[in-house]
Amino acid sequence: MEPSDLDGVLAANTAFYAAFEERDLDAMSKAWEHSDRVVCTHPGWATLMGWGRVAASFFALFQNAQRLQFILTNEAAEVVGDIGWVSVDENILDTADATTVAAFNLFTRDEAGEWLMVVHHASAVSASDAGGGT
Amino acid sequence: MEPSDLDGVLAANTAFYAAFEERDLDAMSKAWEHSDRVVCTHPGWATLMGWGRVAASFFALFQNAQRLQFILTNEAAEVVGDIGWVSVDENILDTADATTVAAFNLFTRDEAGEWLMVVHHASAVSASDAGGGT
Repeated sequence: MEPSDLDGVLAANTAFYAAFEERDLDAMSKAWEHSDRVVCTHPGWATLMGWGRVAASFFALFQNAQRLQFILTNEAAEVVGDIGWVSVDENILDTADATTVAAFNLFTRDEAGEWLMVVHHASAVSASDAGGGT
Repeated sequence: MEPSDLDGVLAANTAFYAAFEERDLDAMSKAWEHSDRVVCTHPGWATLMGWGRVAASFFALFQNAQRLQFILTNEAAEVVGDIGWVSVDENILDTADATTVAAFNLFTRDEAGEWLMVVHHASAVSASDAGGGT
């Protein structure tokens, strides 16, 4: 794979978290493929399928007064053809606490060369395991 | 995509859960790509990177006396080139209880045409949300 491919996937990943932090629904909409095949699993949630449900979930989350800050660590990216993915730890700071969420993000490259999110799966790491698993 | 591509990915997905149910480390090893880029996030765990750590996690899980049974629902599969993925709900039965785990599995097709797992991300659906999210 080309280094520029990885850069493109990582930039798309960064844009997703920037939209999340800014609670910017337009930017979040631009980050995703608008199709029936997109899937999104927020921590502790059932999986949402299709852009309509995924968009509604972000709309609901962005209504929250609480603003989240994401510190991303352990980022690992791969590209195979027109598919790229990023495994990353979201260290989420809010006013009261910090939590670690393990996330997996999958992107496809469209005909214009833009990387669009098709899968976001995030799960809370329980405190007893936050040190790094077995 | 060819229907046979989807069939191949779904068969690989089924083989993964069969190995899990049987606690068969050889079959589990055959289901995965053996590389540094594989990632596995068990429910509540931090993400494990690399086949060595992933294999060790299944070895540890298979030491458990408790046998799990997976009833898979809401299976949705896609193939793009040599990458395929499956979103699926794992309804896990053990002797005491049933839990629902939202899972995402990613596969790559190797030069022999075999679909091998490179990503497994599973997260418990909290009881209040098990009905289907927002």
